[in-house]
Amino acid sequence: MSTSDTYDALLDHYRRVSNVRHADGMLMWDQQTMMPAGGTPARAEQRSTLSAVRHDLLTADELGALLDEADEAHLDDERRAVVREIRRQHERAVRVPDELVEEISRVESSAHEAWVEAKAEDDFDALAPTLERIVELYRERAEHLDPEKHPFEAIYEDSEPHLPLSTVEEIFAQLKETLVPLIDDIRAAEELPTPFGGTYDEASQLALSEDALDLVGYDWNRGRLDTSAHPFTFGTQFDCRVTTRVDEDDPLAALTSTIHEFGHATYNLGLPQEHYATPLGESGSHGVHESQSRFFENHVGRSKAFWEGFVGTVNDRLGTDTTAEAGYAAVNRVKPDNVIRVEADELTYHLHILVRFETEKALLGGDIEVSEVPAVWNEKMEEYLGVRPETDAEGCMQDIHWTAGYLAAFQNYTVGSVLAAQLDAAMRAELDDVDALIRDGEFAPVHEFLAENVHRRGRRYPTDELVVEATGEPLSADAFCDYATTKFGSLYDL
Amino acid sequence: MSTSDTYDALLDHYRRVSNVRHADGMLMWDQQTMMPAGGTPARAEQRSTLSAVRHDLLTADELGALLDEADEAHLDDERRAVVREIRRQHERAVRVPDELVEEISRVESSAHEAWVEAKAEDDFDALAPTLERIVELYRERAEHLDPEKHPFEAIYEDSEPHLPLSTVEEIFAQLKETLVPLIDDIRAAEELPTPFGGTYDEASQLALSEDALDLVGYDWNRGRLDTSAHPFTFGTQFDCRVTTRVDEDDPLAALTSTIHEFGHATYNLGLPQEHYATPLGESGSHGVHESQSRFFENHVGRSKAFWEGFVGTVNDRLGTDTTAEAGYAAVNRVKPDNVIRVEADELTYHLHILVRFETEKALLGGDIEVSEVPAVWNEKMEEYLGVRPETDAEGCMQDIHWTAGYLAAFQNYTVGSVLAAQLDAAMRAELDDVDALIRDGEFAPVHEFLAENVHRRGRRYPTDELVVEATGEPLSADAFCDYATTKFGSLYDL
Repeated sequence: MSTSDTYDALLDHYRRVSNVRHADGMLMWDQQTMMPAGGTPARAEQRSTLSAVRHDLLTADELGALLDEADEAHLDDERRAVVREIRRQHERAVRVPDELVEEISRVESSAHEAWVEAKAEDDFDALAPTLERIVELYRERAEHLDPEKHPFEAIYEDSEPHLPLSTVEEIFAQLKETLVPLIDDIRAAEELPTPFGGTYDEASQLALSEDALDLVGYDWNRGRLDTSAHPFTFGTQFDCRVTTRVDEDDPLAALTSTIHEFGHATYNLGLPQEHYATPLGESGSHGVHESQSRFFENHVGRSKAFWEGFVGTVNDRLGTDTTAEAGYAAVNRVKPDNVIRVEADELTYHLHILVRFETEKALLGGDIEVSEVPAVWNEKMEEYLGVRPETDAEGCMQDIHWTAGYLAAFQNYTVGSVLAAQLDAAMRAELDDVDALIRDGEFAPVHEFLAENVHRRGRRYPTDELVVEATGEPLSADAFCDYATTKFGSLYDL
Repeated sequence: MSTSDTYDALLDHYRRVSNVRHADGMLMWDQQTMMPAGGTPARAEQRSTLSAVRHDLLTADELGALLDEADEAHLDDERRAVVREIRRQHERAVRVPDELVEEISRVESSAHEAWVEAKAEDDFDALAPTLERIVELYRERAEHLDPEKHPFEAIYEDSEPHLPLSTVEEIFAQLKETLVPLIDDIRAAEELPTPFGGTYDEASQLALSEDALDLVGYDWNRGRLDTSAHPFTFGTQFDCRVTTRVDEDDPLAALTSTIHEFGHATYNLGLPQEHYATPLGESGSHGVHESQSRFFENHVGRSKAFWEGFVGTVNDRLGTDTTAEAGYAAVNRVKPDNVIRVEADELTYHLHILVRFETEKALLGGDIEVSEVPAVWNEKMEEYLGVRPETDAEGCMQDIHWTAGYLAAFQNYTVGSVLAAQLDAAMRAELDDVDALIRDGEFAPVHEFLAENVHRRGRRYPTDELVVEATGEPLSADAFCDYATTKFGSLYDL
């Protein structure tokens, strides 16, 4: 075959992989939003079949042969990036023996239930054997992926292939240095009040979420808003949907999570349509994706400018009578005594992540045993946040990730936050008065900046290069630390 | 491999085929009910990928080898039926060359739009080239499937593999003989009045549909009701969903179509769960499926007993003040001058089908040209129904089927109706006072009869054997003609 024919055949094959993945995503979306409860057993089989089909397509000898033939020296940069991404996925998939893939899938299919039960009973010992098996299987998987690397790093590359782990470690060092004393100061300062002390019905809160989506510019012709137990985003550049969750006692939860999910959605909706189902039409790593959601959640939805523009709508929908200042303060309250990651504020969040990052690394590296996890966890919580969870259910068993086979991934949330801050700084260097744009609901220049620098690039650049292309600097926590120190210093009058 | 290992491997392989089909069904359901409009291009690619994956799995050499090995002589009846069904699907799939499958798919992907446009413009000549190509491709397909058979029959077996076409032809002969004079008598009789002359909002109509589903016993834990442009049912024994469509001027349309779809859903929900994704857990032919929807639509929802029990709910929801008698009459009005199939009543419907059946057979058999279709159609309408459509849009272009690649299939609706009547007669012979059960909303014995005789059997029996097993008689129009003559004779005082 000619270089061009080989490339086309490669792309056709990959499109199948990608479309099967999107189909599986559709089944997942339905399961979380629409599916009647009785549908679970059939849905599990359908998704397991799609997963097997996708694995078969990705590991197919035919794909390997096309990759062998691919003549990257004669391709342009974009096409070379496409081949790089397909090659990476194929090679990682073929390195792990089918029996191990199946065993992991078997263990994980019952691990979730074991986690739910052990957490409900606050019984870590009941979960330990499952967790030991998972750690063992992932260590084995890491050995197949790359025996030269630390097992944590090999697995880390599942979700972040293109950012050195050392960069992440530097980011955490910097965050620890800045956030631990900052949070100490905030703990000593006066608590910020909230004007949202009532209860707020679901319909009003959903209407408020719709208003927020209208304001930031969600394209309803390519999206929809539903509710689910855990908010998430699903979709492509043609159809990308968000969900939210309503807590009647806390209207800020639904509002901020809707805006967060909008950030994810606007990334997918901004991917080039002509490259649908190919690497140039797919979003970057988990961390890059999270930068978009956190940009909107924190740098828009938790900004003073946003509350100045939106507080009237909030009052209309919730029947409150608050000011922009008070709303802005309420949505930024720091909760140093909170032990639950998903309820954490913008600052303590990263220390929750650091606890996980270090614990997981020690666990996958074989430095600690599963049985030691509760003690290690609690010590780190004490050290970084000055609080100890009272139970393991509220401690090391709080998250779904490990039993869902999502290991070595927590740090991506932090990467997202620091990249969001770095993008925010770069945007402010390029655009005049971003605060005025946000206050006036003029989001077009904001979207254009993100689209040009991130969305439209698909997977053209590895993460580290993308960050430099988009912001002019390598990834660091500098911008985030500046932003956090200034914002919270002012909020808490430090 | 041992007989048992071969059988298990065969079943595993087939489960994949079946799960991919269900996943595709899920994508279709979403497309019709939930998907934002912008999602169309990506959804088309996803569904086309799943269709290709399914075709590849069904034609796989590996499956052929397992079928060659399968030792049916040493299998029990149930397992033999499983192998029969898998073999049939595999053999039909491999007989048609991949290029032809792809060409049909290409032509059909643009045919739908050609149909929409030609129908909107009432321009049959604009549609003719597309239709000619489709007929040509299906004649070619028929030649590959079985060169010994009439092309119509070869294609007919796509949707009805196990009922001789001659049986269908006898049914139509009998229906023509009974219905043409019966409809003539009705035309001459006094029209039945309707008490539903107002407009009825969507929310009330949907609430009424939910009430009807509650009454007949829909399992909401395994189902849901939504709206779509065309009502349909989608799902399995674990999760089977119905849709309806609301016409503000005609509340009987949504009500009867909801009950119709319930019949489809209750069939799927009644399939054995332990045989999910295998032939013993799959529903029978299109005609058998239609027997279940029509049983509920016509023998329940259009019965006097149902209206006696349900009229109070109808009045509550719609704000009407009608009697069971008047409601029963309204839902059974015969419309001899109507030219549109989907708006037809229980009697004229089958003559609309007969027009299509004969036209399609002549077309696929090469006895008439596409250009002759409008004239042939209109003559047959005149002959059987005494009306001529004024336009081709309301005549031979009214249905989506031909351009959707659903050829030689209309007769399945009639098979469904006559089988429904035959099941109704058998049920009445076995159960005491079915009318009282329906009037009192005591549907358990009705469901049990259908479950035992139809649902739980999956594809254990070929259609013709299933009918004998379930009703004690081969399929004929006898029961339907008796039912129709009695019911409408009484309604119209003939």
